[in-house]
Amino acid sequence: MQNVKVIIWGLGAMGSGMANMLLKKKGVDIVGAVGRGAKLGKSMYEVIGTERGDRPDVIIGTPEDIIKEKAADVVLCCTDSFTSKAFDRLKFVLEKKINVVSSAEEMSYPQAKEPELAKQLDEIAKANGVSILGTGINPGLIMDLLVVIMTGCCEEVEHIVSRRVNSLSPFGPAVMEEQGIGISVDEFKKGVETGHLAGHVGFHESINMIADAIGWNVEKVTQSMDPIVTDVDRKSPYGFAKAGDVAGCAMKGFGYVDGELKIEMDHPQQIEPEQVGVQTGDYVIIKGTPNINMVNSPEVPGGIGTIAMCVNMIPHVINAKPGLQTMLSLPVPRAIMGDLRDQIDPDCKIVK
Amino acid sequence: MQNVKVIIWGLGAMGSGMANMLLKKKGVDIVGAVGRGAKLGKSMYEVIGTERGDRPDVIIGTPEDIIKEKAADVVLCCTDSFTSKAFDRLKFVLEKKINVVSSAEEMSYPQAKEPELAKQLDEIAKANGVSILGTGINPGLIMDLLVVIMTGCCEEVEHIVSRRVNSLSPFGPAVMEEQGIGISVDEFKKGVETGHLAGHVGFHESINMIADAIGWNVEKVTQSMDPIVTDVDRKSPYGFAKAGDVAGCAMKGFGYVDGELKIEMDHPQQIEPEQVGVQTGDYVIIKGTPNINMVNSPEVPGGIGTIAMCVNMIPHVINAKPGLQTMLSLPVPRAIMGDLRDQIDPDCKIVK
Repeated sequence: MQNVKVIIWGLGAMGSGMANMLLKKKGVDIVGAVGRGAKLGKSMYEVIGTERGDRPDVIIGTPEDIIKEKAADVVLCCTDSFTSKAFDRLKFVLEKKINVVSSAEEMSYPQAKEPELAKQLDEIAKANGVSILGTGINPGLIMDLLVVIMTGCCEEVEHIVSRRVNSLSPFGPAVMEEQGIGISVDEFKKGVETGHLAGHVGFHESINMIADAIGWNVEKVTQSMDPIVTDVDRKSPYGFAKAGDVAGCAMKGFGYVDGELKIEMDHPQQIEPEQVGVQTGDYVIIKGTPNINMVNSPEVPGGIGTIAMCVNMIPHVINAKPGLQTMLSLPVPRAIMGDLRDQIDPDCKIVK
Repeated sequence: MQNVKVIIWGLGAMGSGMANMLLKKKGVDIVGAVGRGAKLGKSMYEVIGTERGDRPDVIIGTPEDIIKEKAADVVLCCTDSFTSKAFDRLKFVLEKKINVVSSAEEMSYPQAKEPELAKQLDEIAKANGVSILGTGINPGLIMDLLVVIMTGCCEEVEHIVSRRVNSLSPFGPAVMEEQGIGISVDEFKKGVETGHLAGHVGFHESINMIADAIGWNVEKVTQSMDPIVTDVDRKSPYGFAKAGDVAGCAMKGFGYVDGELKIEMDHPQQIEPEQVGVQTGDYVIIKGTPNINMVNSPEVPGGIGTIAMCVNMIPHVINAKPGLQTMLSLPVPRAIMGDLRDQIDPDCKIVK
């Protein structure tokens, strides 16, 4: 079998990380990279900061240059957070009859916020005989799939709390701005009102994924967003919050079933949590038969986690039935420590 | 769609528990029960100790009486721990063109100890257009699938420890005897030598499942079994160990890849662990990128967990492609809180 052929669309932190991860794996080649602006025409290896060695060069091009029928088995689309913004790009790839993994948070369960676009993506994928999946660390695993798998050993589930207490310190300037790090409490409140502060994207997706999985009919999802005000100055590589200002963003999500609050998401994110004695971790707390009381501490880091999830799902997406897939419809994610081709069904390979 | 139709073969603790769980669910009927000896001819409701209400009675019969083509969508086989002992029964059901969920520990990954029988089961299932799965709490979820899913967010995996520290106090006389509860250390050692003490069945299955999932080629699996000697008298509902005697069985399993110990299983089971300050729990500890350090405490109880896993996998098994399936090849397990029929692909239903 030929090596698995991958194209990466978008060489920001996530796309570059996926490229570097793939370069360490057996049985897989990066055969193309799509970028824009100053990156066009450059070597992918220069952009991701990795020695090319004796590999053939990969010159960053436009989608039209790079993404052609039979050019690859899968395209990793790392360009967007929202389904509506990613839609035209995803459609472009699917119509070239190539499978897609998207890192867009909303694409982890597009049925939640964009049911019409989800339906269209499903139809386009089926018409072209390929499949498409959105995934990442969260949404994608920590606050949803990990909850779902633990309900698998429950006879009954009454109430779910999914909590992710994490550090924003490893993240760069874009995340600092999205989360309001360093601004005043008044500025934060204005940012929430105007929609300028994005915070975490994914509660609708995680709540609907869990509910659909176990057969609860979610009638309402709400969320709240509050500043984490620091008592002391906190400094991370890309962020600074002085005492009295905002060091993080505490988001909560609430899913209601038959008028009752059944699914709670609790996701405080901040820089330098250790400095104030906050222990980070991922929690799954299920009230049911039996109760589940699980924690992974410290938390799975967001960057590495998303990179690994997108790459590790490549075989499942290539092997899947055509259409829109979700983490609920595919087998469990797993690391790739052997030859990637060993996980591929030969009948499903595009580049034979 | 007609309700999902289930036959239960074996009404011991597990089969009875599955019956009681199913009776609380929507969209599913128990249409038959297979037993032997004094149970034959009795009402299933009498044996499982549950009011029949206005449900039609289910009279326990022989396999030949009960398991006929189109009689059910799935048979839950709760009769054995070992693939070789279960084989004829599983074959009998498959040849009636009915899907199977087996609670036999070895059946959770029969490729490990019985590759030839696994191949035969796969062929028989395919020839009859149905699928077969072995599952349970462990093997099936805690010491294997839960490890696999957490490797899904890892770029690299170097070493795995899977630990389950659990209480045997809820279990009955059969488990007390299998695990050597209350006997002397000398008797325990003799029991290990003669193979009389079964201990935990599942390390070969769990280790091979994890390794195959992530692409490690396991060349050797070993295991050890030591008495947990108590310093104080310990008493559980069905067990008693006086000070100096055996209160539990500490099993370890070791999986080697390229001459190196890569997967460790650590599974001490004992009565009344709380009495001596042992905290029970399920642990997944991965050395990799990133590290994973997860614990669910207290542990998922073995009985409820196995019952729930077997029942909750029913929809996945009915929907699966024909053949031998494993927890690696099917979507993640999940609780069934809605109508079971909502999870069934109409094309895959046997009793239309």
